[in-house]
Amino acid sequence: MSDTNRVYRLAKRPEGTPDRDTFELSEEAVPEPGPGEALVKTLYLSVDPYMRDRMSAGESYADPWAVGDALRGGVVGEVVESNGARFDEGDVVTGDLEWAEYATAPGPALTQVDPELAPISTALGVLGMPGLTAYFGTREVARPSAGDTFVVTGAAGAVGSVAGQLAKLQGARVVGFAGSDEKVAFLEDDLGFDAGINYKATDDYRAALEEAAPDGVDAYFDNVGGPITDAVFTQLNTDARVAVCGQISMYNAEELPTGPRKLTHVLQSRATVEGFLVSDFEPRFEDATAQLGQWVASGEVSYRETVTEGIESAPDAFLGLFEGENIGKQLVQVAER
Amino acid sequence: MSDTNRVYRLAKRPEGTPDRDTFELSEEAVPEPGPGEALVKTLYLSVDPYMRDRMSAGESYADPWAVGDALRGGVVGEVVESNGARFDEGDVVTGDLEWAEYATAPGPALTQVDPELAPISTALGVLGMPGLTAYFGTREVARPSAGDTFVVTGAAGAVGSVAGQLAKLQGARVVGFAGSDEKVAFLEDDLGFDAGINYKATDDYRAALEEAAPDGVDAYFDNVGGPITDAVFTQLNTDARVAVCGQISMYNAEELPTGPRKLTHVLQSRATVEGFLVSDFEPRFEDATAQLGQWVASGEVSYRETVTEGIESAPDAFLGLFEGENIGKQLVQVAER
Repeated sequence: MSDTNRVYRLAKRPEGTPDRDTFELSEEAVPEPGPGEALVKTLYLSVDPYMRDRMSAGESYADPWAVGDALRGGVVGEVVESNGARFDEGDVVTGDLEWAEYATAPGPALTQVDPELAPISTALGVLGMPGLTAYFGTREVARPSAGDTFVVTGAAGAVGSVAGQLAKLQGARVVGFAGSDEKVAFLEDDLGFDAGINYKATDDYRAALEEAAPDGVDAYFDNVGGPITDAVFTQLNTDARVAVCGQISMYNAEELPTGPRKLTHVLQSRATVEGFLVSDFEPRFEDATAQLGQWVASGEVSYRETVTEGIESAPDAFLGLFEGENIGKQLVQVAER
Repeated sequence: MSDTNRVYRLAKRPEGTPDRDTFELSEEAVPEPGPGEALVKTLYLSVDPYMRDRMSAGESYADPWAVGDALRGGVVGEVVESNGARFDEGDVVTGDLEWAEYATAPGPALTQVDPELAPISTALGVLGMPGLTAYFGTREVARPSAGDTFVVTGAAGAVGSVAGQLAKLQGARVVGFAGSDEKVAFLEDDLGFDAGINYKATDDYRAALEEAAPDGVDAYFDNVGGPITDAVFTQLNTDARVAVCGQISMYNAEELPTGPRKLTHVLQSRATVEGFLVSDFEPRFEDATAQLGQWVASGEVSYRETVTEGIESAPDAFLGLFEGENIGKQLVQVAER
């Protein structure tokens, strides 16, 4: 085991779009696990759009990080030392840990990962927070049923790619917005979406949507917001459900962007627009993960990962989320098991 | 009974704000009731903001009127002739009838009004469509409970004034936006609202709201939309409910207005924003009307009416809705009973 530990800390709050100067890689001593804690060696680190929010000082559902704090996120790692935590050395675990090569955590903050069940990285993707977000957002909020048209933005991402497949399992017609022809091919050819729209290849989102969803939109899973969402709202059918999961197009805005007012569409369609956080469904995580695991095992749900190598690649992996560089779940592999 | 009948017809589609040229008063023969129909003499005619929508050709939840069509709306009138309809001469009835001194309607399209129960004009207000809209929008969509803060726009209008009182009955703190000091006094002194905000006397709706609703907003009943709604969305508490009932600030817009994007507020608060139409609750109208009638009889719900005289005052009464000239329900008295 190395003597030194590399940790990413918040160097300064970003104004608008973060860049490499937002992050500082600090060389530190490997921490000692306190009583009831485990020392975990990071194998995979997750980067997620919601982290942008914690870099700012404003109010949000997540507490902001202080400048100088270690960044935190989903990690899959290996227990290298247990000081009365309920794990053995060599156990694979997942939890919300520092962006670091080594981190300590109390036993109850860690969950065992079974490497026999699925590749361990899936605990950060299809069988982790993004998969659960897709599961509850689709099944509990957007609620597509057979014959419905379901639209998802960020469709080739970690959440959107699963959401669309779950809507297909419910019998819906599924249309996804994504940012390249390669992603559209992934949606249509690999995931079984009925149609993908490359939003970077059209200025007229509404016309593209009218073609791909000629019967209007019954359920909308929004990860992106902005002009694509404006177009979707014009196509909402009576009693449509909109699940507001993310608004990645807004996260780097310094001032609140403006757009067409949409409540008249909500009124005319009697739509329900609902923001949700996956954490609100925590009591049901275990059952949902088991269900997702079955679908992955049976091939009914596919997933893809984009993996960068080395902890020093984490800032670029995070920044790439806002450029749409990933297909499926974006991960950083920090060490081999 | 007069031989001639005066009927308002749609003279032309308004561009932007309607004016008197939108309406044409036509002198016609009094119609003959067909088999199963009644001839009704109009006593009170209701003017409502939703009618603006039917004057335009665009898609909405209500079919647009054709140019030359008689305008239609809620009427309370007296049956002067029954041709096999299930009413007697002299019965007071209400229904969706033409803006006319006399109109025919099939028996099933008319509902008996009991003049002993309450003034007959209330069948168009607190005990009619506006009262029912307030009832279902408050109790089924915005759902304020004890200790919640409930905010309503158009608070001194036919719907808002009832909505706020129903929220008070649920034990909520009630804040209303209205457009004059007289209306604010009506809210606070006559209806028991906790606070009224005269939006015409402030530019900073958000600051006014922070003062009137220091604990944030749990339930919002929106009749107006636009910049006031923008301010309310910044103050939504976790799991807030927004009932989108009307957007009167938008109805005369020729192009869809823009405003700050609000879905990030929906996401951060996990709010639910729901458009609704009172007609969706039709199976429950009878029970709800009975409940409203009890509250009116006991004085727990107060109401006010603004009444203009003569059918020729109907266009101005309608146009005045968009200027906020009414307090409570705006009615046109067409004839004495």
